[in-house]
Amino acid sequence: MADQGSGRHEVLEAARRAREASHGLALATRARKDQALHAMADGLLAASATVLAANAEDVRRAEEGGTPRNIVDRLRLTDERLVGMAQGLRDVAGLPDPVGEVVRGSTLANGLELRQVRVPFGVVGMIYEARPNVTADAAGICLKSGNAVLLRGSSSARSSNAAIVSVLREAAVSAGLDADVVQLVPGDSHESVKVLMRARGLVDVLIPRGGAGLIRSVVEESTVPVIETGVGNCHVYVDAHADLDKALAIVVNAKTHRTSVCNAAESLLVHADVAQAFLPRVVGALQEAGVTIHGDDGFAAYDGVVPAADEDHGQEYLSLDISARVVPDLDEAIRHIRRFSSQHSDAIVTEHQGAARRFVAEVDSAAVLVNASTRFTDGGEFGFGAEIGISTQKLHARGPMGLPEMTSTKYVVTGDGQVR
Amino acid sequence: MADQGSGRHEVLEAARRAREASHGLALATRARKDQALHAMADGLLAASATVLAANAEDVRRAEEGGTPRNIVDRLRLTDERLVGMAQGLRDVAGLPDPVGEVVRGSTLANGLELRQVRVPFGVVGMIYEARPNVTADAAGICLKSGNAVLLRGSSSARSSNAAIVSVLREAAVSAGLDADVVQLVPGDSHESVKVLMRARGLVDVLIPRGGAGLIRSVVEESTVPVIETGVGNCHVYVDAHADLDKALAIVVNAKTHRTSVCNAAESLLVHADVAQAFLPRVVGALQEAGVTIHGDDGFAAYDGVVPAADEDHGQEYLSLDISARVVPDLDEAIRHIRRFSSQHSDAIVTEHQGAARRFVAEVDSAAVLVNASTRFTDGGEFGFGAEIGISTQKLHARGPMGLPEMTSTKYVVTGDGQVR
Repeated sequence: MADQGSGRHEVLEAARRAREASHGLALATRARKDQALHAMADGLLAASATVLAANAEDVRRAEEGGTPRNIVDRLRLTDERLVGMAQGLRDVAGLPDPVGEVVRGSTLANGLELRQVRVPFGVVGMIYEARPNVTADAAGICLKSGNAVLLRGSSSARSSNAAIVSVLREAAVSAGLDADVVQLVPGDSHESVKVLMRARGLVDVLIPRGGAGLIRSVVEESTVPVIETGVGNCHVYVDAHADLDKALAIVVNAKTHRTSVCNAAESLLVHADVAQAFLPRVVGALQEAGVTIHGDDGFAAYDGVVPAADEDHGQEYLSLDISARVVPDLDEAIRHIRRFSSQHSDAIVTEHQGAARRFVAEVDSAAVLVNASTRFTDGGEFGFGAEIGISTQKLHARGPMGLPEMTSTKYVVTGDGQVR
Repeated sequence: MADQGSGRHEVLEAARRAREASHGLALATRARKDQALHAMADGLLAASATVLAANAEDVRRAEEGGTPRNIVDRLRLTDERLVGMAQGLRDVAGLPDPVGEVVRGSTLANGLELRQVRVPFGVVGMIYEARPNVTADAAGICLKSGNAVLLRGSSSARSSNAAIVSVLREAAVSAGLDADVVQLVPGDSHESVKVLMRARGLVDVLIPRGGAGLIRSVVEESTVPVIETGVGNCHVYVDAHADLDKALAIVVNAKTHRTSVCNAAESLLVHADVAQAFLPRVVGALQEAGVTIHGDDGFAAYDGVVPAADEDHGQEYLSLDISARVVPDLDEAIRHIRRFSSQHSDAIVTEHQGAARRFVAEVDSAAVLVNASTRFTDGGEFGFGAEIGISTQKLHARGPMGLPEMTSTKYVVTGDGQVR
């Protein structure tokens, strides 16, 4: 009890310090923020030995604890990854400052000048899993958008995160900013996450990044507003009027280019009219790439296809698996997607203008793609220069979130004594 | 138990019907939606006798139950108010359709065409208190922005709301839309509000409109994303460099023009340098208008000023009361506002450019006003043509919300077979 109490107190204290620091950061010029970002990049490279040693501790602990190999891989930092983290910070420095952008403006009939201006949220809480590179990425994006950040990484990365954050804080101070613009949330227990989720008034927005379980728990328990990110049960629908060469390339790319990411395809729908021509080709190509197909009756005739249950259609595999169905028409494809999609990214392959137009209008996902791989739903690919996550909610931001999505706005009304 | 269970079932059924109806509404052309809005206006006028009779029942029940006079007044409909409601619907028909607006667009290096397009949320839940005119206003704004709406008005207005919604549904059908684009939430109990707040996946966003208690309970209990509206502890700060004539007019207007609204001033701060010149004038003018001043030591010397406690500074009076303090400098004014403001609307009166600039930058409220009354924070005054509420949260929408704020966006990516 005493421990829990003191954990709670420490988290709230950190949030209060973040709030204090956020006031100054909101007023910082772009020049000062960019100076801090470059100092952070320089600092990470200069301290690479320390950071890698701290990371080696985390990796050793994870291996000793029997952590699966792919998780340990995500945890591991290398010189190359550190260089990538530093470059990421410099890239953010190169992006325009969203703070102060005038989103709209007009002069009202009574002479009042109305301006809607971008301002930082204030304090952002990031809750994320294994990858320690997210620590630097998130800190950089929050800093540039004028937000103090409370970082709550996975306890498996605690030594790495502590070493990285220590470098980032020192760099912030060297640029004349308050060290508390970047903080690790104190405490390792789940209790500290809970305190963060209830710190309404101190924390302005929470961004959970990680597995479906983490995101669901934050969405359900938090009283602080949440931006939900990243669960993707993405579909590729091959229409009756598809160019089957394009369709094949898109399906294989969307499924196999990188399987562990939220914009990978997890479900394939094929129009009955092209099933006979397309199924042999797509089954062959996917199986050659090592993919297990969980298919309906239409696919069942092919060797190696595993029968699909309903839960397969709702599944985000994040592996070399795909669910597959033959559908009688576009209507059924849209109905299927409405039922099973996580509303992240869904694609149609078609040369038929009317079919494309209907799919785009009727599929309600963060990204709807025509004749393109679902893998393109990404801040980098979209040209945003930096991405803090991909929102799958409809409020505030939907799809890849760059710097502008990390801001709120305020109305500035300037007059000369006007009254109503 | 049986009753509660069936209430829950009915609310979820209504939400499911709203979801179904939302698919068609999202695709409706502007012409059809405007036709429905005009039919709603015509219908309300044609059915005025029925609506007023239903309203008379509500008013009688409220009076018999000993409801305070001002609440009964808000509940009461008249021919004039019905004409106003009908005109409101026609005004919304006259506004541009936000759905389909391309917010940004570009062609990526690989030839992909990227468009961020406004789309409806889907299903909006409105939870509101006594005024039955909100029923028509909210239905009109939701319909025009392509959202099916679940209306949960106060049980004190249940007959009025039922009569109004029946007219609106018939009008929707006459324009070729599904009746279920507008529904009253079945059931009168608090249980039905709870079901709505937990209908994540069926309801896309909840907008509570009413007193601070209602809003707090929705914000804290809802798992459906919420847009928080309307609590306003608004400040007017009279700076050392204020034009005192303007200051006097602004303070009196902001406090007394209409006391029951969220953009009315509740707190007055006066710089010590102008206290001697300004306090006699402002105390006299406010008292003449019937205002009780809850003042600090600086105000205590004036007859009729009541001593202010800390809770006065945090209070949203919504009455002819104002808290008042003399502050030594701009820093203390900003500190006071940071501590007590509900971040709705805060104003500075000054002719000093530097002071105005600092106040605008450092006061983090939905609207910050320079030399203008806080009463201007309003969708109508801002020229939005319609307003569904004033958001005091930082996520998604901040300040007065018009039609664009009632939409989300999706990315539409069009290619020619692109893969990564």
